[in-house]
Amino acid sequence: MKSTNIIYHNASVTRKRRNQSNKHKSAVIWFTGLSGSGKSTLAHSLEEILFNKGCKTFVLDGDNVRHGLSSNLNYSNKDRKENIRRIGEVTRLMMEAGLIVMTAFISPFREDRIAVRNLIPDGDFIEIYCKASLETCEARDLKGFYKRARAGEIKNYTGIDSPYEMPVNPELIIDTEKETLDESVSKIVSFLQKKAIIR
Amino acid sequence: MKSTNIIYHNASVTRKRRNQSNKHKSAVIWFTGLSGSGKSTLAHSLEEILFNKGCKTFVLDGDNVRHGLSSNLNYSNKDRKENIRRIGEVTRLMMEAGLIVMTAFISPFREDRIAVRNLIPDGDFIEIYCKASLETCEARDLKGFYKRARAGEIKNYTGIDSPYEMPVNPELIIDTEKETLDESVSKIVSFLQKKAIIR
Repeated sequence: MKSTNIIYHNASVTRKRRNQSNKHKSAVIWFTGLSGSGKSTLAHSLEEILFNKGCKTFVLDGDNVRHGLSSNLNYSNKDRKENIRRIGEVTRLMMEAGLIVMTAFISPFREDRIAVRNLIPDGDFIEIYCKASLETCEARDLKGFYKRARAGEIKNYTGIDSPYEMPVNPELIIDTEKETLDESVSKIVSFLQKKAIIR
Repeated sequence: MKSTNIIYHNASVTRKRRNQSNKHKSAVIWFTGLSGSGKSTLAHSLEEILFNKGCKTFVLDGDNVRHGLSSNLNYSNKDRKENIRRIGEVTRLMMEAGLIVMTAFISPFREDRIAVRNLIPDGDFIEIYCKASLETCEARDLKGFYKRARAGEIKNYTGIDSPYEMPVNPELIIDTEKETLDESVSKIVSFLQKKAIIR
């Protein structure tokens, strides 16, 4: 700009204005649970419902993060921590951008999930524990990874040779052994309405 | 979900459906240029215009990335490369989410910008070179960083002791020494209309 026009232009489009324009609040919905506990299925099913209500949404999951943003990380405890940290920072940005962001990652360590929670304003981080026993998840074994972990072909697999730490006070618990998918999704939608995130 | 309901639910809400719902195409608008060349000012001014047209937008800049997603990176060439890589991956995700994402980073290395361009489908990556001489940028010195770099207090400062590689074929060149801010923003809006990204 010409010298007369050199004014540092701050961000004028705020989260508040985006939320007003979108007619819903932005938020982070964090699904956590064992591999096979239904995180991805729930997130994508919820997204379909929210999209049809006119909400602006996005799902972060292994498919779009592990080959991209976190492609230079492995599954050591240190790298898992950094993976969740990066995802947390991206959810924060997407929430600022006005989206209802859903994440579907095992995110096994309590400390790492708490660190993400602390990035997000109070009430805007919704932790959903997808509850299913290791037995059930292992029986489902959608990707065949449990079998390979039991055979020692995959190391540091959560539930087998790496721990999963259950949330202490999640906003919601979804029991994917007992509920149908429709029941689970309805429960989350009701929660979002009760919290005035969506109408 | 009950065992009868175990169906892997793929992402059904696609970029295409989001773009239809938002009534504009999503895209990545990548501003590059020296510190003080007007990247942030242009990005935020453009965002204000696009937001008022009803577009879904976001600006990534030093303020929201360097203290968060890239807080564990410094200004070495290696870390600058990783910083731009991460930002590139985030723009890709946000573009998938339906946003017109604008970035305001010096992003001095051609190779790193090309790597981001290669992540994004053809035509959806719009590189805008903010053209201003080092002399002009140094005279502006909005943050006092050039002075400190000249005094040796800041190392690896682009233009002083670290190179800036101009884009070879940017989609647009904005001469921020000669144009007013309004002229520059109008030029970008026209470009986006011509490319049918916005109406």
